[in-house]
Amino acid sequence: MNYSIIVYIVGMILNVEAVLMVLPCITSLIYHEKEGLAFVASMAVCIAVGLPLILIRKPKKIFYAREGFVAVALSWIALSIGGALPFIFSGSIPNPVNALFETVSGFTTTGASILDSVEVLPHCVLLWRSFTHWIGGMGVLVFVLTILPQSGGSYMNLMKAESPGPSVSRLVPKVKTTAKILYLIYLLLTVLEIVLLLIGRMPLFDTICISFGTAGTGGFGVLNESCASYTTYQQIVITIFMILFGVNFNVYFLILMKKFFQAIHVEEIRYYFGIILVSIAAITFDVWRAVGSNFWRILQNAAFQVGSIITTTGYSTVDFDQWPMFSKTILVMLMFCGACAGSTGGGVKVSRLLIMVKTVAKEVQIYLHPNAVKKIKMDDKPIPHEVVRATNIFMVVYILIFSFSVLLVALNEYDFTTNFTAVAATLNNIGPGLEKVGPACNFALFAPGAKLVLIFDMLAGRLELFPMLLLFLPRTWKKF
Amino acid sequence: MNYSIIVYIVGMILNVEAVLMVLPCITSLIYHEKEGLAFVASMAVCIAVGLPLILIRKPKKIFYAREGFVAVALSWIALSIGGALPFIFSGSIPNPVNALFETVSGFTTTGASILDSVEVLPHCVLLWRSFTHWIGGMGVLVFVLTILPQSGGSYMNLMKAESPGPSVSRLVPKVKTTAKILYLIYLLLTVLEIVLLLIGRMPLFDTICISFGTAGTGGFGVLNESCASYTTYQQIVITIFMILFGVNFNVYFLILMKKFFQAIHVEEIRYYFGIILVSIAAITFDVWRAVGSNFWRILQNAAFQVGSIITTTGYSTVDFDQWPMFSKTILVMLMFCGACAGSTGGGVKVSRLLIMVKTVAKEVQIYLHPNAVKKIKMDDKPIPHEVVRATNIFMVVYILIFSFSVLLVALNEYDFTTNFTAVAATLNNIGPGLEKVGPACNFALFAPGAKLVLIFDMLAGRLELFPMLLLFLPRTWKKF
Repeated sequence: MNYSIIVYIVGMILNVEAVLMVLPCITSLIYHEKEGLAFVASMAVCIAVGLPLILIRKPKKIFYAREGFVAVALSWIALSIGGALPFIFSGSIPNPVNALFETVSGFTTTGASILDSVEVLPHCVLLWRSFTHWIGGMGVLVFVLTILPQSGGSYMNLMKAESPGPSVSRLVPKVKTTAKILYLIYLLLTVLEIVLLLIGRMPLFDTICISFGTAGTGGFGVLNESCASYTTYQQIVITIFMILFGVNFNVYFLILMKKFFQAIHVEEIRYYFGIILVSIAAITFDVWRAVGSNFWRILQNAAFQVGSIITTTGYSTVDFDQWPMFSKTILVMLMFCGACAGSTGGGVKVSRLLIMVKTVAKEVQIYLHPNAVKKIKMDDKPIPHEVVRATNIFMVVYILIFSFSVLLVALNEYDFTTNFTAVAATLNNIGPGLEKVGPACNFALFAPGAKLVLIFDMLAGRLELFPMLLLFLPRTWKKF
Repeated sequence: MNYSIIVYIVGMILNVEAVLMVLPCITSLIYHEKEGLAFVASMAVCIAVGLPLILIRKPKKIFYAREGFVAVALSWIALSIGGALPFIFSGSIPNPVNALFETVSGFTTTGASILDSVEVLPHCVLLWRSFTHWIGGMGVLVFVLTILPQSGGSYMNLMKAESPGPSVSRLVPKVKTTAKILYLIYLLLTVLEIVLLLIGRMPLFDTICISFGTAGTGGFGVLNESCASYTTYQQIVITIFMILFGVNFNVYFLILMKKFFQAIHVEEIRYYFGIILVSIAAITFDVWRAVGSNFWRILQNAAFQVGSIITTTGYSTVDFDQWPMFSKTILVMLMFCGACAGSTGGGVKVSRLLIMVKTVAKEVQIYLHPNAVKKIKMDDKPIPHEVVRATNIFMVVYILIFSFSVLLVALNEYDFTTNFTAVAATLNNIGPGLEKVGPACNFALFAPGAKLVLIFDMLAGRLELFPMLLLFLPRTWKKF
C-alpha cells in the first residue's frame, strides 16, 4: 500500500475544505453573524491538520485501485469531520454525532437531517449546510483533480472510485480536462437555476441554498417545511432542475459538442424519463382517486416528488407519507432506482437496472432458443462482460449492506417501515423516508449507534459501496 | 414448441392427483364424513379431463428446456385447480379464489391460509390440506418421473425446472433412479417423525398432518393456534424435523452410502447450521432481554421459530409478531435466506447466498491484489461460471418479481410491513409474515386481485421463478 499518496490526498482535501469555508465566512460578514468565528476556527483546524500532511513527505506516484478506494474513503471521512466542526463550534448542533450525521448527510447529498427546525440557524450555517451538497454532488476529489499539479493518467482510479455508475467514461483523453468540463457544466446549470428562481422572486439567499441542494441532489432546505411554501413557478423550476441534475452529465457534454442526435439516443436517458413519466402518471391517478379534487395541484406535487425521489434529492412540497400506500410504494421503488449514472444523484442507477434487465432478457432468450447467440447491448454497443459482472457484484454488496443495516437499526425498536425506509433513504442518499422518518419528521430519534450505521450507509451509498467496505477489511491494510 | 408432450404431462398429473385423492376418501370413511363425496366428485373431474389428455395422441419425445419450463408451470397450475375442487365442492372454502389460494399455498408448501378457523373443517379436508404439502414438497413431477414408462434421459429438464437450488446433481446416472431414491428418503423421514410424535402421545391424525406439513416444509396445522398447544417434547421433535427437512437431500444419500466424511463436509450444510445457531442465540438473547424471565422457554420458542422460518415451514408456537423488532428483523432476513438447495424448503437458498458472498470476496481480492488469480470454490470444487451467472440472474428476477408484487399488493392500502412481509412469506413459501399477516392472522383480508398476485408469487417461488415467468412471455408461445 502506498500510504504517502493517501496521506497527501487527505491533507489536500482538508486544505481545500478550509478554502471552501471562505464562502460561509463572507455570508456571516454580510449578515453580521458572530457564528462566522466558528468557521474561522474550523478553517484553522483544517489547515493545522491538512498542511503538515501535504508537506510531510513527497508522495510516491504509484497508484492502484486499492489506493484509489482507500484514498477516497478516508478523504470523505476527513472532509466530513472537518465539515462538522462549524456546526459544533457555532453551537448550532452541539452533539458531535449529530453534527457528523448532518455533515455526512450534506456531503453525500442525502439531505437527511437531525434538526427539528432549520429556521433558527444563522445564515452562514445554513449556507454551509447547503454548500456541502454542492461540493459533494460532483465529488470533491474530482474537484481536487482539476487543481492538482500532477498530470492526469494515474488518477483515473480516484475518479472511478468517486463517480457514480457502473462505468466511467472519459469525455476527453485527459482525466483532468474531463473533470474541468464536468465542473463547468455543473456550475453553469447551478447559476441558471439561481437566475430562474430569482426571476420568480425568491430571495437571493434562498435561491443559492436551494440551487446548491438541487444541483447536488441533496435536499437540505432553508425552511422547516422544505419547499411547500414556495410559489407554483418556483416549485416547477425546482422540479425541472432536480430532473436535469439526475441526467448523465455526458449528455450535456454531447449537447455542448452539438451532437444532439447522439444525446437523445442515450438509452439510459430515455428509460430515465420513461420511468419518471409513468411514475408521475400513476401517483397522480392514485392520489387523485383518493382525494377526488385539485387534479393540477396533485399532478404538480406528484411531479415534484417523483423528481425529488428518483434523483435522490429529497425536497418535498407535501407530506407524501400521507399519500395512499400504492403511491408510497412507487416512491420506495424509485428510492432504489435512483438517477442516471454520471449524474449527481444516488441510488442503484437506471443504467445498472437496465443492464440487469437486459441480462435477464438474454437468459430467457437462451431458454427459448438454445442455439441463438445474443450479446447484451447498450446504446448499440455490446456491454463488456466486466461491466455486467461489476453490476451483479454491486447488487450483492448492496443487498448485504442494506440487510445488515436494517438489522442493526432495528435494535432501536422502531417499526419495520421506519427502519427499512431510513436505510433506503440514507444508502440511496435521498433524505426522507416513511413513518417516523417521513418528510414531516427527522432522524434525531435514532440512538448514536444507529446514527453511525446510517452515516456509514450514506458514505457507502455515495461512494458506490466498495471504498467504505474495503476500509473495514483487515486485508486492505496488510503489506504485501 | 412440442405441445404434445406438455399436454401429455398435464394429463398425467391430473390422473395422478385423482389417485392421490384416495387418501382423503379413506379418511372420510374412517370418520364417517359426508365430505368424502366432494373428493369422489373431484376425482371424477380430474380423470374426466386428465384421461383424454394422455390418450389424445402419442407424445413426441423432443424435450428442450423450454418444454420443461412450460410443462412444469402448467402442471402445477392444473394440479392446483384440481386440488382446489374438494374445498369448493365440500363447502369448506366456497369462494373459488380463496380455495385456489389455499391449494396453491398447500402444493407450494407455503402454508399461508385464508381460513379464520381450521378446527371447524372435517378430517378428510384437513388431511388433504396437509397432504398437498407432502405432495408439493418433493415435487409432483419428480414423482411422476418415478412411475413414467419412458426411459430417464430426456426428462432431466423436467427435474431441473422443478427442483430447488442453483444446480441439480444426479445422485446416480439415471434420473428415474435418482427420483426414486429421493422419494424413499423423504418417505422414511416422514414415517420417522410420525413414529416419534406418536411416542410423544400426539393423536395419530395430528401426527400425520403435522408430519406432512414438516416434511414438505409447508406449515398447515390442524389447530387454530398452530403448534402452540403441543407439549415441549412434541415441539422439540417438530423443531428437529423441520431443520432436518431443510437439509440438502444429497447429504442423506451420502449418509445412506456410508460416506459420512463427505456428508459432514458439505459447505452449504455447515453454513446452514451456523446461520441457525447464530439466529437462535441472537433471538433468545434479544427476547430474553425484553421479557426478563423463562429463559428455557424463550430458547425453545426461538429454536422452533428459527427452524420454522429458515426452512420456510411456517409453523408457530408463539405470536412472533409480538417479539422485539430486532428479533423480527432476523426472522425477515431468514425468510429470504431459506433452506438448503435440494431440500423441500423455499427461499433464496443458502448455497445461492454462499455463491454470491464468495463472488464478492473474489472481487475484493482482485481490488487488493490485481494480479492474483483466484477461482471461486464450493466443497473444494470450482463453481462453474454457468452457475454463478444463473445465480446472479435468479437474484435479479427475484428482486423484480418481489418489487412489482409489493407494488401491486399495495393497491389494497394496507401498511408497508404487511405488504412487504406478505410477499416475502409467499414468494419464499413460508406462510406467516408480520403485522396483518402475522402468525395470529391470515391472508383473507386481501382483495381477489392481490390474492392472485400472491398465488403467482407462491408458484414462482416454488418453481424457482423462471417457469412462471416464461408462461407470461408471448415469445414462449411462438412457433419457430
